Amino acid sequence: MSLIGKEITPFTAQAFREGDDFIEVTEEDLKGQWSVVCFYPADFSFVCPTELEDLQNQYANLQELGVEVYSVSTDSHFVHKAWHDHSDAISKITYTMIGDPSHEISRNFDVLIEEKGMADRGTFIIDPDGVIQAAEINADGIGRDASTLIDKIKAAQYVRNNPGEVCPAKWEEGKETLKPSLDLVGKI
Amino acid sequence: MSLIGKEITPFTAQAFREGDDFIEVTEEDLKGQWSVVCFYPADFSFVCPTELEDLQNQYANLQELGVEVYSVSTDSHFVHKAWHDHSDAISKITYTMIGDPSHEISRNFDVLIEEKGMADRGTFIIDPDGVIQAAEINADGIGRDASTLIDKIKAAQYVRNNPGEVCPAKWEEGKETLKPSLDLVGKI
Amino acid sequence: MSLIGKEITPFTAQAFREGDDFIEVTEEDLKGQWSVVCFYPADFSFVCPTELEDLQNQYANLQELGVEVYSVSTDSHFVHKAWHDHSDAISKITYTMIGDPSHEISRNFDVLIEEKGMADRGTFIIDPDGVIQAAEINADGIGRDASTLIDKIKAAQYVRNNPGEVCPAKWEEGKETLKPSLDLVGKI
Amino acid sequence: MSLIGKEITPFTAQAFREGDDFIEVTEEDLKGQWSVVCFYPADFSFVCPTELEDLQNQYANLQELGVEVYSVSTDSHFVHKAWHDHSDAISKITYTMIGDPSHEISRNFDVLIEEKGMADRGTFIIDPDGVIQAAEINADGIGRDASTLIDKIKAAQYVRNNPGEVCPAKWEEGKETLKPSLDLVGKI
Amino acid sequence: MSLIGKEITPFTAQAFREGDDFIEVTEEDLKGQWSVVCFYPADFSFVCPTELEDLQNQYANLQELGVEVYSVSTDSHFVHKAWHDHSDAISKITYTMIGDPSHEISRNFDVLIEEKGMADRGTFIIDPDGVIQAAEINADGIGRDASTLIDKIKAAQYVRNNPGEVCPAKWEEGKETLKPSLDLVGKI
Amino acid sequence: MSLIGKEITPFTAQAFREGDDFIEVTEEDLKGQWSVVCFYPADFSFVCPTELEDLQNQYANLQELGVEVYSVSTDSHFVHKAWHDHSDAISKITYTMIGDPSHEISRNFDVLIEEKGMADRGTFIIDPDGVIQAAEINADGIGRDASTLIDKIKAAQYVRNNPGEVCPAKWEEGKETLKPSLDLVGKI
Amino acid sequence: MSLIGKEITPFTAQAFREGDDFIEVTEEDLKGQWSVVCFYPADFSFVCPTELEDLQNQYANLQELGVEVYSVSTDSHFVHKAWHDHSDAISKITYTMIGDPSHEISRNFDVLIEEKGMADRGTFIIDPDGVIQAAEINADGIGRDASTLIDKIKAAQYVRNNPGEVCPAKWEEGKETLKPSLDLVGKI
Amino acid sequence: MSLIGKEITPFTAQAFREGDDFIEVTEEDLKGQWSVVCFYPADFSFVCPTELEDLQNQYANLQELGVEVYSVSTDSHFVHKAWHDHSDAISKITYTMIGDPSHEISRNFDVLIEEKGMADRGTFIIDPDGVIQAAEINADGIGRDASTLIDKIKAAQYVRNNPGEVCPAKWEEGKETLKPSLDLVGKI
Amino acid sequence: MSLIGKEITPFTAQAFREGDDFIEVTEEDLKGQWSVVCFYPADFSFVCPTELEDLQNQYANLQELGVEVYSVSTDSHFVHKAWHDHSDAISKITYTMIGDPSHEISRNFDVLIEEKGMADRGTFIIDPDGVIQAAEINADGIGRDASTLIDKIKAAQYVRNNPGEVCPAKWEEGKETLKPSLDLVGKI
Amino acid sequence: MSLIGKEITPFTAQAFREGDDFIEVTEEDLKGQWSVVCFYPADFSFVCPTELEDLQNQYANLQELGVEVYSVSTDSHFVHKAWHDHSDAISKITYTMIGDPSHEISRNFDVLIEEKGMADRGTFIIDPDGVIQAAEINADGIGRDASTLIDKIKAAQYVRNNPGEVCPAKWEEGKETLKPSLDLVGKI
Repeated sequence: MSLIGKEITPFTAQAFREGDDFIEVTEEDLKGQWSVVCFYPADFSFVCPTELEDLQNQYANLQELGVEVYSVSTDSHFVHKAWHDHSDAISKITYTMIGDPSHEISRNFDVLIEEKGMADRGTFIIDPDGVIQAAEINADGIGRDASTLIDKIKAAQYVRNNPGEVCPAKWEEGKETLKPSLDLVGKI
Repeated sequence: MSLIGKEITPFTAQAFREGDDFIEVTEEDLKGQWSVVCFYPADFSFVCPTELEDLQNQYANLQELGVEVYSVSTDSHFVHKAWHDHSDAISKITYTMIGDPSHEISRNFDVLIEEKGMADRGTFIIDPDGVIQAAEINADGIGRDASTLIDKIKAAQYVRNNPGEVCPAKWEEGKETLKPSLDLVGKI
Repeated sequence: MSLIGKEITPFTAQAFREGDDFIEVTEEDLKGQWSVVCFYPADFSFVCPTELEDLQNQYANLQELGVEVYSVSTDSHFVHKAWHDHSDAISKITYTMIGDPSHEISRNFDVLIEEKGMADRGTFIIDPDGVIQAAEINADGIGRDASTLIDKIKAAQYVRNNPGEVCPAKWEEGKETLKPSLDLVGKI
Repeated sequence: MSLIGKEITPFTAQAFREGDDFIEVTEEDLKGQWSVVCFYPADFSFVCPTELEDLQNQYANLQELGVEVYSVSTDSHFVHKAWHDHSDAISKITYTMIGDPSHEISRNFDVLIEEKGMADRGTFIIDPDGVIQAAEINADGIGRDASTLIDKIKAAQYVRNNPGEVCPAKWEEGKETLKPSLDLVGKI
Repeated sequence: MSLIGKEITPFTAQAFREGDDFIEVTEEDLKGQWSVVCFYPADFSFVCPTELEDLQNQYANLQELGVEVYSVSTDSHFVHKAWHDHSDAISKITYTMIGDPSHEISRNFDVLIEEKGMADRGTFIIDPDGVIQAAEINADGIGRDASTLIDKIKAAQYVRNNPGEVCPAKWEEGKETLKPSLDLVGKI
Repeated sequence: MSLIGKEITPFTAQAFREGDDFIEVTEEDLKGQWSVVCFYPADFSFVCPTELEDLQNQYANLQELGVEVYSVSTDSHFVHKAWHDHSDAISKITYTMIGDPSHEISRNFDVLIEEKGMADRGTFIIDPDGVIQAAEINADGIGRDASTLIDKIKAAQYVRNNPGEVCPAKWEEGKETLKPSLDLVGKI
Repeated sequence: MSLIGKEITPFTAQAFREGDDFIEVTEEDLKGQWSVVCFYPADFSFVCPTELEDLQNQYANLQELGVEVYSVSTDSHFVHKAWHDHSDAISKITYTMIGDPSHEISRNFDVLIEEKGMADRGTFIIDPDGVIQAAEINADGIGRDASTLIDKIKAAQYVRNNPGEVCPAKWEEGKETLKPSLDLVGKI
Repeated sequence: MSLIGKEITPFTAQAFREGDDFIEVTEEDLKGQWSVVCFYPADFSFVCPTELEDLQNQYANLQELGVEVYSVSTDSHFVHKAWHDHSDAISKITYTMIGDPSHEISRNFDVLIEEKGMADRGTFIIDPDGVIQAAEINADGIGRDASTLIDKIKAAQYVRNNPGEVCPAKWEEGKETLKPSLDLVGKI
Repeated sequence: MSLIGKEITPFTAQAFREGDDFIEVTEEDLKGQWSVVCFYPADFSFVCPTELEDLQNQYANLQELGVEVYSVSTDSHFVHKAWHDHSDAISKITYTMIGDPSHEISRNFDVLIEEKGMADRGTFIIDPDGVIQAAEINADGIGRDASTLIDKIKAAQYVRNNPGEVCPAKWEEGKETLKPSLDLVGKI
Repeated sequence: MSLIGKEITPFTAQAFREGDDFIEVTEEDLKGQWSVVCFYPADFSFVCPTELEDLQNQYANLQELGVEVYSVSTDSHFVHKAWHDHSDAISKITYTMIGDPSHEISRNFDVLIEEKGMADRGTFIIDPDGVIQAAEINADGIGRDASTLIDKIKAAQYVRNNPGEVCPAKWEEGKETLKPSLDLVGKI
């Protein structure tokens, strides 16, 4: 079974966050608000910085929706700090960059490529109970588009706040939702 | 490890395809061209038809890119036929609707919710070698947006056709790609 | 050993019942009165509707005997509702139609054809203690005759109400029964 | 999974057949023509003789349909002979009475009640390939009605001889059958 | 190790006893007095009735010695009753005839021929504590002589009542016994 | 299952035979003619010599029937020789006395009392194929009567030489035997 | 590891002791004083009596040292008694002769030759705590010399009574012993 | 079972031999002539040198009998050399001193005290086939007397050279031996 | 057992080497010449750069001795490149910097701290056969001194080139070595 | 994982210390102060004495730092005493020389060469909590230089006493240390 609907597994990790000293992050930090966890293969590699920059561009919007953002690679927090110091793209990042050199988190989210010791390009949306609501994973070489996260999270939030309604395909905030009922069966 | 980069597991299934009699589909049919496989929980339920209709709207564009489309639920091919007969949204569908009452394919793609006997809302992009290149899975209640498939497939096809280049985040056809090299390390 | 004389295994399922919203059915609902559970392979297939219609024709008689009726296939309750909406034969059905997409009940009653994900054509008579008293299972393609249920249930009820007597072959209500005793050995 | 659609397991047994000396019966004898195998708990007990007599009454009809009949209990062939000698009902029997004191056949057909060393009241219809096509099993105390066998066997024979057609519920010889096709889905 | 000196294993069985209704017999019934348990292969077979008749001829003598007698075959108590009704030899029997269709007792006494589902011709002498004191088992086709039981039981009873003495070969009641002692070593 | 009908297990042992030097005996020596194997607990003990003497008294008669006799205890062949030298009863013995200090033969015949390292008082009749035809085992303290062997062996030989006939209880040479047939069922 | 320094394993055995009736001996009898346990292969064999006689010749001396003597073979106590009655050499023996037909003691002392069921020629010196202090084992055919036991036991007793001193090679009573100390290292 | 009668297990070791450089010794060197292998706990300890010196005193006699001598401790060959250099007693030794720091040989001969990493005081006589003929093991603190080896080896050699004769207790060269035969049983 | 004297386990890794593009390194590259492999916990951390710079200072000397140098951390080759670009200390490094994000090499050399996903500070000297000759491992926080490598390698090379000689403690090139011989035992 | 950072495993051993009698040493003696444990292959061998002498030369300095020194080989404490008596180099040693003939400590520290029964040349620095802080192991034939221990121990002590600081490569007492902090990342 996929990880959708599963609560995240406990972990402890060191992270870099601009303006802070190195900080410790655990699975408890991902609860209490919505979270986006964005895995990528390697610091100082190629597609990765464009993806992380793209995510940074959405960070303000996501925060307005009450969403915290975490990036994760199997690089250490020292390396995240150095990358932040030296890369134009990465230096803009203000969200938390988690180091996972022990592979623990990448394995928990089922995205570790064991023979490389690096993570797949996986993005996860996690609700305030720590339950995974959506996942998107691309092969190496194919970048993600962070803007699609906004609509998904709005839909997930709407469903959470309005039990008994669901969001149809391509739903955007304000659009009509569906109330599942006996009479609706076969009527759409 | 996630399914990204793995070849699909063999299967045999009955399917409905408008204009055809019931047909048999195997994993071999998914090779030789690009494929999109779209799992959804249940025929005659609520979010599902809007997602499938949305996918149908992209079908012509996907076919132009050489992509074949398959929807899969754990309903039988008989039920797919009936749904097609009776639902306004579904009656428009011209791609192949696979029945998976034995749960075999849903289990292969790791999207079976065992206690429900239904699939997660998972979409998979598969290359002509039968290798999974991208996956997107949403919790029940959150619809997908088929239009995002087009850009992902174009990126995947570009990378396949241009070994040594990668597509950055939010890449669209015609935009610049990246050629990974020693000198590019830390320069983005 | 066959299931005869065994108590039914616990289960939880969604069902469709005309006039009701979707309802939840458990093994407890099958206790306290006599029950007939009728498995069939697939909604919207061919022999099945004639069998279910035939069973409906006996439903009033069965209810008079204090018997509740349940049909079960591995289709979902959504599909049962749709079938009821669109099939002439099925639209007459007023008993409870249980959905078993997780295969749990079909496996409990030993009628799941694993490679198809569909049930054999099995009919079970269950007494008020939830104990299976009779079973009849036909290969696909051979329909059942619901009228034979009446006599079997009357015999089973007679035996239950008259400990120490048994019903001979072809017994019908009102006919003589047998009281097993030492003197009867070899005398029939 | 039930035994429906399974080939019978090999066995070797001693049997009594009126007019013959004791004979050996194996699973091979049940192939090449249609067979009915009728299990019952015990010779010289109460319901049993009425059931076996009832079956004898149908024997001529069954033979006309090319069906051979075998009764089986865990009593020995010696006991079958003695019962035939001394019981009015049983003395009429002309079909083969198999002794199963080793429990082998009863276990093969999944009807052995281990703690009693006796068989459930199970009747099986077996096709010329030795494949079980129908089963009916009643709790002790409830007699069977052999006349229902005729229609079931006719249906099974019709389906075997007319691939692509199925018999609806309550089908009798001469009545219309159904040819499953795409267009028939949801039309019954 | 043989069963000699072992206490009998618990069992529950149905039995026929002339003049009684069918009765239940357990291992407890074999304790408190001396017992002879006589296994034979099959009711209504050939050597068996002569052996059982021979045992009946000794029954009065055995009862005088405080010995109860039980015959056992894997036939049911129904069959024992029928055999008693119809066989000249068996109709004389007044001791208890135990039915063992579940094979439990025959297996306990290690005399079950598994592939036949029948017992060896074994006779066991059991003391009032339920401990087996003597066993005699013959291949099928060789009858036993019940008269030899009398002397064996007398010897066993003498030894039980006179601790410290043993009975020499061919000992008969009244003859001298032996008191084992140091001085007797090598003196016989 | 008891040892009746089983072929004896291979063994090699040292034995004493009056007039011979010590000799080696194997299971092959027990084949080709009928054999009686007589186990007893211990040389120089009490019941034992009377039993062995009693067996010697029958030795001539047994030899006339083509039967060879072997006694076995877990004492060594040295001890058998010494006992033969010093015991009045044993000095008469002319049959072969096997030593079984390794417990191999006693274990093969299932008569070893492990905690004592001594054998039960078991007598076995073995046919020329090395198959055990009869067994008699008494608890310690109860002597056997060798004269009963003669009739048993005659019966066993008669059955071996006249396939299709069996000896009834208390049969003695010259008396009528039984030819099992269908007509004899229930007639004795 | 050898048995030296190990406490003897519990056992229970029957023994013969001249002048006594048969007696029971356990491992407890070997504690509280020094013991010599002398295994030999077989009563009534050849080297054995000379060894046992030789041991008897030392018995008075050993008793003066507070040593009790036990001989053990796998023969029974009955046989020991008989051997004592009939052998010139053995009739002189006044120490306890243990019977070990169950092989328990021989196995405990690791001297059982399994395929023969006889013991090696092993002699063991056991201290008052039941701990084995010395062992000597010869192949069959090579006799032991009991006189060497005296010096060994004296040395063992001296060491036990004088903690901190050891006896050099060929030490005899009265000779100088050694007090191990740092200064003695390399000085001998 | 003890090691008596067993062939020695292969080993490879470094040894010191006066006048030679360090040499390698294997189990093959112990074959082809008689060998004495003498284990002791530790170089530079207390009883040990007196035992080794005592063995040296017998070395010439042993060599005349065709016997080679090996001492073994878990000390290295370096330590044997040093001990030979510095100890008066040890400097006289001319036989081979094997080092067993890996514990391999001590374990093979079952004399390793695992928790100390030292060997028991065990002496073994090995015949030219590498088969152990005699063993003597003393607890620490009790010295051995090498002179008893001479008689044991002479007896072992006599038995080897004169098959069919055995040496009685206390046998010395030239004394009478015994020829085991039937007539000798119980005559000694 | 430590890794000393063991051949290195096969591996494949990506590495950064100044002036080269990224290169692949396997265990084969470490054979054919002497190698130093230097593990450290993390790029961009604190003690590490001083150690690697110290090693660089010895690189010319090591190369003169025919020694190749490899540093290894669980960081990727991308990170090594970036560190080399941005750190004053690291930018001087001209030896090969291996990336081990999959933990394979660190696990092979037994220096992986599993819960951190980082390596201990271990340095290994490997001979031209790929066999580890020396290892030095420090706890985190304690730096190494690369200059001590020179003497160790010279000693290892001298021993390899001069079989039969060994280097004493604190040996430096040109100093006297030792030729182990019998006469030298205990003379140093 | 290497032993660095692991607490030492419990052991009990005999040791020689000049001026003392033989003493017992356990793992508890290695706690409460800093310890150096120095393994070497064999007493009376060649490289070893030079290494131990070299270590003795540093003993006073080490003691000033509060460090206790222990040498360990698989030789016994008797041999250590003898070596001390006879070797010029070893006679100077005043630290504790532990005997490990049982291999327990060598195995605990992972330096036992099983097939030789000797230890690698391994040196371990242990902190007052019994935790191993540094290890250095050389192949046989390559001597160690004890002087390098001083700097390592000083660094280890400094780090222990100044949490939050680390010692760079080639650090010596008095030199500057490093305080790891965010700002230092990539700045060295």
